[in-house]
Amino acid sequence: MKKLGIVYFSATGTTKALAKAIEEGANEIENTQVRLFPIGKEQLVDGRFVDLAVLSKLGECDAIVFGSPTYMGGVASQFKAFADATSELWCEQLWANKLAAGFTCGSALNGDQSSTLYYMITLACQHGMLWVSVDAAHGYTKKNINRLGSQLGVVAQTTSESLHEIDLATAHYLGKRIAGLLNEKTRVPLLHDE
Amino acid sequence: MKKLGIVYFSATGTTKALAKAIEEGANEIENTQVRLFPIGKEQLVDGRFVDLAVLSKLGECDAIVFGSPTYMGGVASQFKAFADATSELWCEQLWANKLAAGFTCGSALNGDQSSTLYYMITLACQHGMLWVSVDAAHGYTKKNINRLGSQLGVVAQTTSESLHEIDLATAHYLGKRIAGLLNEKTRVPLLHDE
Amino acid sequence: MKKLGIVYFSATGTTKALAKAIEEGANEIENTQVRLFPIGKEQLVDGRFVDLAVLSKLGECDAIVFGSPTYMGGVASQFKAFADATSELWCEQLWANKLAAGFTCGSALNGDQSSTLYYMITLACQHGMLWVSVDAAHGYTKKNINRLGSQLGVVAQTTSESLHEIDLATAHYLGKRIAGLLNEKTRVPLLHDE
Amino acid sequence: MKKLGIVYFSATGTTKALAKAIEEGANEIENTQVRLFPIGKEQLVDGRFVDLAVLSKLGECDAIVFGSPTYMGGVASQFKAFADATSELWCEQLWANKLAAGFTCGSALNGDQSSTLYYMITLACQHGMLWVSVDAAHGYTKKNINRLGSQLGVVAQTTSESLHEIDLATAHYLGKRIAGLLNEKTRVPLLHDE
Repeated sequence: MKKLGIVYFSATGTTKALAKAIEEGANEIENTQVRLFPIGKEQLVDGRFVDLAVLSKLGECDAIVFGSPTYMGGVASQFKAFADATSELWCEQLWANKLAAGFTCGSALNGDQSSTLYYMITLACQHGMLWVSVDAAHGYTKKNINRLGSQLGVVAQTTSESLHEIDLATAHYLGKRIAGLLNEKTRVPLLHDE
Repeated sequence: MKKLGIVYFSATGTTKALAKAIEEGANEIENTQVRLFPIGKEQLVDGRFVDLAVLSKLGECDAIVFGSPTYMGGVASQFKAFADATSELWCEQLWANKLAAGFTCGSALNGDQSSTLYYMITLACQHGMLWVSVDAAHGYTKKNINRLGSQLGVVAQTTSESLHEIDLATAHYLGKRIAGLLNEKTRVPLLHDE
Repeated sequence: MKKLGIVYFSATGTTKALAKAIEEGANEIENTQVRLFPIGKEQLVDGRFVDLAVLSKLGECDAIVFGSPTYMGGVASQFKAFADATSELWCEQLWANKLAAGFTCGSALNGDQSSTLYYMITLACQHGMLWVSVDAAHGYTKKNINRLGSQLGVVAQTTSESLHEIDLATAHYLGKRIAGLLNEKTRVPLLHDE
Repeated sequence: MKKLGIVYFSATGTTKALAKAIEEGANEIENTQVRLFPIGKEQLVDGRFVDLAVLSKLGECDAIVFGSPTYMGGVASQFKAFADATSELWCEQLWANKLAAGFTCGSALNGDQSSTLYYMITLACQHGMLWVSVDAAHGYTKKNINRLGSQLGVVAQTTSESLHEIDLATAHYLGKRIAGLLNEKTRVPLLHDE
């Protein structure tokens, strides 16, 4: 059984909906167990993330997906508090070699959501993880996803807190993709498929 | 009288020392009033920055310098909470055209401190500000500063919480540089000096 | 007379059209002289940019705007060849304190055009320049420009080589903005206007 | 037999030395075949990379490592010309799921080499690849490598064209790491080792 953890902060429910879509996508692959870890204010004391049990549970996962809305050109401070709390694990590189990926949303089509994903990539690299991109060339392949053209991770645009269905489909695809990469059987042909 | 605000988070005193060095540098330019705004945990409730009076005071400044240690490849969550709280001002672009700059520190020579500065640049651009870089070519000009070669802003490396004196000198220089740029008289030859 | 130089690479004419829009915007401000510097293959020998006279002419400008299409997540190699050739000027920081800004275009709405702008910012910071952002909050201020929400610079999306008129308007605005910042008279109230 | 391709541009031999160190590290893992692809000026016509046979050979590799000196805050234009030429492959995502990693060098300790690595990450993500980071926490684990603290990839500092031996060791380690990840046997415990 391969384990996939999705750790995210959601204020309005939009990022949560993306997390759910990733979960559903991952569950389409057999032998996958998905667990969601929403970041809540009860876990934040004086601006610090203190729920270390979450870090321990994420440590049992084979892949971790990071999610946050884009606030002022970066991850929400609540997500950053979580990221800062992982520094203990960093010292020992306890998450090394796990797969990592990310998703975000914002109110504009190109409103620095990339900056949020670059931060998540930086966090993953600090942990020695392998970053999984979105293998969909905008306008050429997998035309039913990735309408915005981001391949660093999932970028969603939200207006009035409703998500575009293609953005949800991109999230669903990313979940399925990571679960597939984790699965032994799909990993053998990993480097040659499609 | 030109006003320069320095808003920063410091956990151990290292970032505060850099802020002080910037203040001292700025004070070497006549007609400059510097004010420090340390971010404290009493300003953070449930992970959110709630001291809106600080935002108002920063709004009176002609330049704002951002400072944070680099934690897990980005600004500290406490600084990010401050940044997130500026979203109200963003809507009206109340900080447009102010000068902006940044400084950070970390325990490694090249430990993703750039990522922290890129975030501060992104924040400044979201506010319509003008980003002031460090005009010192490593190994060629101003050889008494910028030993690490970063021109996005001030990068300091700290070991055992003691700062390298050249990094402090770089911070001092940046303060003086910004205050000079703010000063009417130095602004006229701004584009041609040195 | 304030001088603004626009240096860009354009393969299909799209980036050139953005450059023209910036020129037109800048020309709306009195006392501004704009000059375009298209990068052509005759300036490239063995992949290196060899037209050093262009660098010299840009050195006479008070502001320099960088333009390139986004190719594979970054500036076109032709633009990069130009950037690499500026290393001689870098050593002496000959472009320090000039204003800088950037524009790019791509076929997707959010196809790593930000990455191109981050590179241009990095280049500007290496030269000790001041980066001018787009002071338009998507959905709140200046609603007739910046439909995509990027404030690092101008991002345009092009389909079948036709530019969206709002993206052209954003470019026009950026030109006017920079020329205004360069003009003495508008510079005095620079920090407080609007 | 797993294939690893290293594609790089080297003007002075420094980047080539890093490529060689990666090759040697990879060769320590059985069942690995390494091939170097230096980018030469004979492959560049009018600033474009025209040796499409190289792209085809890289397509046969299971992992591709990108290398370039940092010039003016980014990859060398010669490397960018290569990257631009991969756009044909991008349309079909022919490199999807391959492993990717990167290395760079510069004359300063923190002279925007991160910017070069971020570009290589962006390129890898555009191709749907999986980015392999350096799983060494500066000052805590694997203390004989990664003296500069970068985990995005290998950053080397070079003075007078001589490389620091620890930077070469970091490159050697990265080669061994990728070859290990490619090897079936080491891939099974990939997510749990050390």
